[in-house]
Amino acid sequence: MNDLNDLKQLYEKVRNKGLEDFKTFLKFPSISSDPDNTADVAACCNWLADYLRSSGLEVDIWDTDGHPTIFASYEGAGPDKPTLLLYHHYDVQPVEPLEEWKTPPFEPTIKDGEIYARGAQDNKGQCFYSVLAITSLLKAEKSLPINVKLLIEGEEEIGSPNLPAWLEKKKEELKADYLAVVDVGMRDKSSPAVTVGVRGMLTMELVVDGTKTDLHSGTHGGVAFNPNHALVQILAQLRDPETGKITVPGFYDDVEKPDEEEKKLLALDFPDKEYFRLFGQKPTGGEKKYTLAERAGLRPTLEINGISGGFTGLGFKTVIPARAAAKISCRLVPNQRPEVIGKLVADHIKRLTPEGIETTLHINPGTGLPLRTNPHSTIAGAFATAYQEIFGKPVEFIVEGGSIPITSELAEACGGEAVFAGLGLADDQIHAPNEHFGLDRLEKGFLSVARVLSIIAEKKQE
Amino acid sequence: MNDLNDLKQLYEKVRNKGLEDFKTFLKFPSISSDPDNTADVAACCNWLADYLRSSGLEVDIWDTDGHPTIFASYEGAGPDKPTLLLYHHYDVQPVEPLEEWKTPPFEPTIKDGEIYARGAQDNKGQCFYSVLAITSLLKAEKSLPINVKLLIEGEEEIGSPNLPAWLEKKKEELKADYLAVVDVGMRDKSSPAVTVGVRGMLTMELVVDGTKTDLHSGTHGGVAFNPNHALVQILAQLRDPETGKITVPGFYDDVEKPDEEEKKLLALDFPDKEYFRLFGQKPTGGEKKYTLAERAGLRPTLEINGISGGFTGLGFKTVIPARAAAKISCRLVPNQRPEVIGKLVADHIKRLTPEGIETTLHINPGTGLPLRTNPHSTIAGAFATAYQEIFGKPVEFIVEGGSIPITSELAEACGGEAVFAGLGLADDQIHAPNEHFGLDRLEKGFLSVARVLSIIAEKKQE
Repeated sequence: MNDLNDLKQLYEKVRNKGLEDFKTFLKFPSISSDPDNTADVAACCNWLADYLRSSGLEVDIWDTDGHPTIFASYEGAGPDKPTLLLYHHYDVQPVEPLEEWKTPPFEPTIKDGEIYARGAQDNKGQCFYSVLAITSLLKAEKSLPINVKLLIEGEEEIGSPNLPAWLEKKKEELKADYLAVVDVGMRDKSSPAVTVGVRGMLTMELVVDGTKTDLHSGTHGGVAFNPNHALVQILAQLRDPETGKITVPGFYDDVEKPDEEEKKLLALDFPDKEYFRLFGQKPTGGEKKYTLAERAGLRPTLEINGISGGFTGLGFKTVIPARAAAKISCRLVPNQRPEVIGKLVADHIKRLTPEGIETTLHINPGTGLPLRTNPHSTIAGAFATAYQEIFGKPVEFIVEGGSIPITSELAEACGGEAVFAGLGLADDQIHAPNEHFGLDRLEKGFLSVARVLSIIAEKKQE
Repeated sequence: MNDLNDLKQLYEKVRNKGLEDFKTFLKFPSISSDPDNTADVAACCNWLADYLRSSGLEVDIWDTDGHPTIFASYEGAGPDKPTLLLYHHYDVQPVEPLEEWKTPPFEPTIKDGEIYARGAQDNKGQCFYSVLAITSLLKAEKSLPINVKLLIEGEEEIGSPNLPAWLEKKKEELKADYLAVVDVGMRDKSSPAVTVGVRGMLTMELVVDGTKTDLHSGTHGGVAFNPNHALVQILAQLRDPETGKITVPGFYDDVEKPDEEEKKLLALDFPDKEYFRLFGQKPTGGEKKYTLAERAGLRPTLEINGISGGFTGLGFKTVIPARAAAKISCRLVPNQRPEVIGKLVADHIKRLTPEGIETTLHINPGTGLPLRTNPHSTIAGAFATAYQEIFGKPVEFIVEGGSIPITSELAEACGGEAVFAGLGLADDQIHAPNEHFGLDRLEKGFLSVARVLSIIAEKKQE
C-alpha cells in the first residue's frame, strides 16, 4: 500500500470512525498552562496512549515533573530500515475570551467542512492525522515500510519546561534518521509548504508595584506614582514608534542575517493587501524597513501579550491601583539565546523604573531556541514530494514565525535531519477564539504522513 | 439641647440602636455603576427614606432617569429662621478586587474601634451621622433650631448624570441659606479641617482596536500592530516622564493660580516622609515642581484608573489581542471645564494613533466642576467652631483633591453659601478594599452636625 490511490482508499475506510475519535480527542480540555486542568491533561494523555497502543505500537508514558509525554514506537521494519521520529503535542492554549467563541471550545462542531474546537489545528488536528495514518496503516498492513517513533508532549504551549531533561535521559530510544515536527503550515490552502525554520521563544511577566494598597485617585491623584502610568511608560520605551525597532540595548546583536541564497529560496512575498483582507488591518507592526514576510519569519520580536492594572470592569472606579502587570514574549531568530535576551530585557526595565515604583521581571522557564534546517535534506524532500503529489503543485519553502520550543533539543537528541511540516493556515484562529481545521486537510495530512513513510523507504532503497 | 454636653448625652442614648441601623444601611450593595445592582440601590434608597420619614421629616423621592434621590426637609423652625441644606450620597463604589477584602464588603465588621465595609466612610458613614443627629434631635426635642433640608443622592460615584436636571426643576424646594457637603475629611485624626475647595472630574474610556480577531503572536508578531503596544505608546505620551506634567496641548491653559492670601490660609504642608509611612511609597507622582499638598489639591491630574488587553490570567497565552482599553480620569481645578478638557484629550489621542490601529475615546456623562468657596463665610465658621469644640483644637482650611461632581450646580440651585466638611481620613481606604470608618468619628460627626444647627441659630440671633 504505497501509492496515493491505495492510501485514499484506506482513508475512505477509516474516515467515519476516525472523525469520531478525533472529536473525542478534542473534547479533553488539555490546557497545560492552567493548574485547574491538570487532571484533564492527564486524561487526554491516557486516552491517546491507549489509542496508539491498540494499533500495535509500543507505548511508553514519561512521567516528567510536569504534564506527561507519550513516546510510541514501531521498530518492526528492522535495523536496516531508516527511522522517522514525528513530534506532536496534545496540550492546548487557554480559551479566553470565552464569550467570543461561537460554539463551546471543547464541544467540537463541524460547519462548512471545518471543525471548530480549541486545538482543532494546534496541534491536536495535525497530531491526529499523523496518529490516524500510522495506526490505520499498521492495522491494515500489520507493518510499516520504515521504523517510526512518535513523541507527543503535553507542555508545548508552556514552553516544554520538563522535556529537555528527559530527552537527555532517553537519547538511545529517541535515535532516528529523520525528525519531522508536524506543527506548522502553509501560506494559503492551495500552496503546500515545507518549513525550514522556526523562531525561538521567551516569555516574561512584568509586575509593577506602587503603594501598599489601592488608593483613591481624587485624594492621591498627582501624588502617588500610579503603577499604570509606570507600566505604560516602561513598556512604551521598549519599542521605537518611528522605526518599529525594539529598543532594548543589545537586542539585535546576535541576529544572523540570512544569506542571499537562503533569501532566494524562501518565499518572502506576501501582499499587504491580502493581509488586510484576511485580518481587517494593515500589517503595520514590527520593523518598518523589512517586508511583511521578513518581519514574520526572519526578524525577532517583542510583543505585549497581556496588560492589566486597576479597575477594568463595567462602569468606572476612580482608583490608583497598588499594582499593574504585563505579559511579554519575544520571538527569537538564529543566533539569539533566550537567556541572553531575558537578561537584556530585565536590565533595561530596571533602568526604566521611575522612583516611587518597584518592578520585577519574572522570566518563565521553558524557553525555545530558534532553528533553521536544510531545505535540501532527504526529509525535507520527502515532505515536498508528498505534498506535491497531494496538492498537484510544487511546495514553497518558508520560515515560520511561531515557535516550537523543544525542536532544537529534539533534533540534537535524535541525531537526525529535521524538518517542519504541516497544513495549518494563518486564519485557523489558533491561540484565539473559534479555532478550526478543515476536514479536507485532515485527509491531506493523513495522506502526506503515510506517503512520507513510503517515499523515505523508496529513497533508501535507491 | 444646645451645648456639647447635652448632645453627648443624647448620643449615649441613641448609640447602640444607631450602630445597628448603620450596619443595616451598610449591608445594601448600593453600587451605582453596576447595572446588576440597580435593585440594591433602590432598596437602599427606600430603607433610608423610611428611616428619615419615621423621625417626622417630610420625605420625597425623586425618580430621576437613573438611581433615585432622597429629599427630606424640616421647616418647623419657621420662615424667620435660616435653612441649612446638607448633601450626602447613599451609593458606593464597586468592590473589586474582592479577594483583597479581609471581611466581606457588605457584611459590616467592627475591629479595634473601626467599622469595615464598602461605604463605611464614603459616604454612608458620614451620611449616617448627619441622619442620626437630625432624626435623634427631632425625636427628642420635637423641633430643630433651624430649618434643615437633606439631599441624599444615589449617583455620586458615577458623576451624578441625572441630578442637574432635577436641581433645575426643584429650585424652589432647594432654597437654603447654607449648603454643607459632608463628604470630605481631614489630614489626620487629631486635626479637624474645613474644606474650601474640591477638584472637578471627568472620566473617559479609551478603546484601541487592531485586527478583526485575536491573533497568534508567533505568526503575527512583528506583522500586526499589537493594540497593547498602541495603547502603551498613546498613554505614555499623555505625560512627560521628566516633569510629570500632562502633555495634552492646552491642558493647563485655564488653570487659575491661587493668590498669596489663599495659599497662606491653606494648610499646604504635608511631609513626604509621613506619606511614605502611610502608603509605603514616596509620593513621586504628579508635577515635580509642586509640593505634595499643591499637587493634591491645587493642580489638575490625568490618571489611568484601569488598563486591560490580551491574556491576563494564570499562565501564558501568546496572543496579539484584537482590542486593548483603558479607563482614564482627570481631576480639574478652577477654571477648567470638563467638556473643554475632554475634547483636548480626544484630539490628542487621535493625533497619537498609529496607522493600522483605530482608537475611540468615550467621554462619560456625569462630569463635575471644580469649586472653591469662601473660608470666611457663616457656614464655614459654624463647622470650624463645632470642630474646634469637639476636637479641642483649631481647624485647618484645606482643599480636597477628590471631587463631588454635583456641588457647583447644587450651590447655584440653593443659592446659599457652600462649604465642604467631614471626618474622612486618607487611610480610610475609600474606593479600595477594606474601607473603614472609626466609631469615634461616627460620634464626633453626630456631635458636629448637631452643634452646627445651634451655632447657626445663635449666629442669626446675634
